[in-house]
Amino acid sequence: MRTIPRPLIDKGKVNGEWQMNEAPKSPQLSAAEFIQGIRGGDRVILGRAITLVESNSPDHQDLAQEVLAAVLPHRVASLRVGITGAPGAGKSTFIEALGKLLTEQGHKVAVTAVDPSSSLTGGSILGDKTRMEELAVDARAFIRPSPSGGALGGVARKTRETIVLFEAAGFDVVLVETVGVGQSEVLVRSLVDFFLLLLIPGAGDELQGIKRGVIELADAIVMNKADGSQLQAAEHSRADFERALGYLRPATEGWQTRAWLTSARTGTGIPEIWSMVKEFQTVTTGSGVLARRRAEQDRHWVRSLVRDGLLDLMHAKPGFSEQMAVLEEKVASGELPATTAARQLLDLLRPGQGQ
Amino acid sequence: MRTIPRPLIDKGKVNGEWQMNEAPKSPQLSAAEFIQGIRGGDRVILGRAITLVESNSPDHQDLAQEVLAAVLPHRVASLRVGITGAPGAGKSTFIEALGKLLTEQGHKVAVTAVDPSSSLTGGSILGDKTRMEELAVDARAFIRPSPSGGALGGVARKTRETIVLFEAAGFDVVLVETVGVGQSEVLVRSLVDFFLLLLIPGAGDELQGIKRGVIELADAIVMNKADGSQLQAAEHSRADFERALGYLRPATEGWQTRAWLTSARTGTGIPEIWSMVKEFQTVTTGSGVLARRRAEQDRHWVRSLVRDGLLDLMHAKPGFSEQMAVLEEKVASGELPATTAARQLLDLLRPGQGQ
Repeated sequence: MRTIPRPLIDKGKVNGEWQMNEAPKSPQLSAAEFIQGIRGGDRVILGRAITLVESNSPDHQDLAQEVLAAVLPHRVASLRVGITGAPGAGKSTFIEALGKLLTEQGHKVAVTAVDPSSSLTGGSILGDKTRMEELAVDARAFIRPSPSGGALGGVARKTRETIVLFEAAGFDVVLVETVGVGQSEVLVRSLVDFFLLLLIPGAGDELQGIKRGVIELADAIVMNKADGSQLQAAEHSRADFERALGYLRPATEGWQTRAWLTSARTGTGIPEIWSMVKEFQTVTTGSGVLARRRAEQDRHWVRSLVRDGLLDLMHAKPGFSEQMAVLEEKVASGELPATTAARQLLDLLRPGQGQ
Repeated sequence: MRTIPRPLIDKGKVNGEWQMNEAPKSPQLSAAEFIQGIRGGDRVILGRAITLVESNSPDHQDLAQEVLAAVLPHRVASLRVGITGAPGAGKSTFIEALGKLLTEQGHKVAVTAVDPSSSLTGGSILGDKTRMEELAVDARAFIRPSPSGGALGGVARKTRETIVLFEAAGFDVVLVETVGVGQSEVLVRSLVDFFLLLLIPGAGDELQGIKRGVIELADAIVMNKADGSQLQAAEHSRADFERALGYLRPATEGWQTRAWLTSARTGTGIPEIWSMVKEFQTVTTGSGVLARRRAEQDRHWVRSLVRDGLLDLMHAKPGFSEQMAVLEEKVASGELPATTAARQLLDLLRPGQGQ
């Protein structure tokens, strides 16, 4: 009896659904192939390089570091802009409108996102290509959704390294989107030159779920959806914010944060926002503030990687995490002085202790 | 020939000045003597115990930890209040007026200070007894100037441990004064339950040299010197701040920071401030926010001691500090990826590396 061979693509029915074979996996590229592809602006290789830096496998990490080190000196001068705002503030529409304006002016624009919920939802709700239809097919634009995968610290590293790859591939404007839940904004603020907060008018003091402290991080507050019947409410909110900003420490030395109006839907105000960002670049480049910010971000990044790495080494010691939790509770309940607890924990790192 | 013996007290003339022998040094107390003295409210022993926790000598530190561990369970329930403001805002007068009110009500009041400049000036400009004449001689009050000595991290530890000693000696209100230079306010905020910012009217947006971000740490903003011809300007400033506070994230969950008027000189408004602090205590105790804050402060303290200790261990490795500086600059100048730099630094901690 002769069995009729099934087509290779058919893996059969699983849970009532027909499963397809995965597309044959592309062979891993060498470091040289990655480097050449990125520098040549090959979009497929750029995408695979980002997947590489996003991988948590030690082998991939080694290769990723080799590639990053090689492309670092070849980055184009860029402007990094962070954009935040609550869901519904119109971030995708705003980024699409700004991105189109920039590509028309000859810029190469890369968009990525930091989605603090990606570890929960398993997928990005941000930087979504389907919501930026025109930009997604623009040959001068590149959209990459938020890396998923665990703690915000990991997302920070992946996003930082993705930005390096963007710049090495010639993208001179990098837009980083995030959503307003506090920590992720602080993270994005530490990745970018300019940070923009997008709001919609008429939402009053509640700031639409934006953590109040976020306005202190912003280099500009933009009241979006300022059109039609909303225009007057938008101007009222804008003036309110303008007054409040007078009481806040500016996010950037030598730059007064202002409140602006746009309608991303109609495009009104978008060119003015870009002019303002360019003015920011001119002012902070002239004063040296921008160069200092980037150098300080880099130094801070090294230190935080070292600190995290040290804590990882500690937590890898058998019993350390448990001991830390026990001692923290003893301190919190007033049983033990904190300095004594810290000494006991540090003693675990001494040679001959622990393991 | 017979030499006439010099009086013992005379050490002779040095640099043109007559030098006296030091007063005979009191013998070091035992842990048991410290513990008994502190719990008995012995002011001299309390003072010496604070000197002990302020000492950087390892022997003293060991003894200090033993004493702290023993007195920890015997602390009275207390309220810790941080008070900041620029020089000239009237902090000493305010603390004296508030302190007198509290001792008259039967409270035992301890005052200390965090002076970020003490490592430069060699002495405290804050918590100065000579500026709190009445409180300094009040039997129910204890004033201790800022610990001197180096980095803010060290000052933080000393101040935290001093507060433990205060509470073990029965002081149920602890006032911690600091001056407005940013970092020291963040530090004091992490030590106290309630944080109060003292301002004077009419100084406009400049906030009298107070870092703007400090208002975000405050549970109350107090316009002091609201008397005589200043009263109207003070009320105007108060209303301005009240409006601006509506845009800020409150420093404490469930507590709306408000702006108040006082005249510490005449005493006007001081009882109202204390009523408000008591209300804060009631609200945040009821909601559990106060207990959580203290537990979180303690846990955070342990973690920061461990992190600092780990970095100290790293920096004690020969060449580590130099290597860290070199690698940070390589990252800042774009020669090396940060992750690679951090890996190289962490490798120094591996067994067999470094020393």
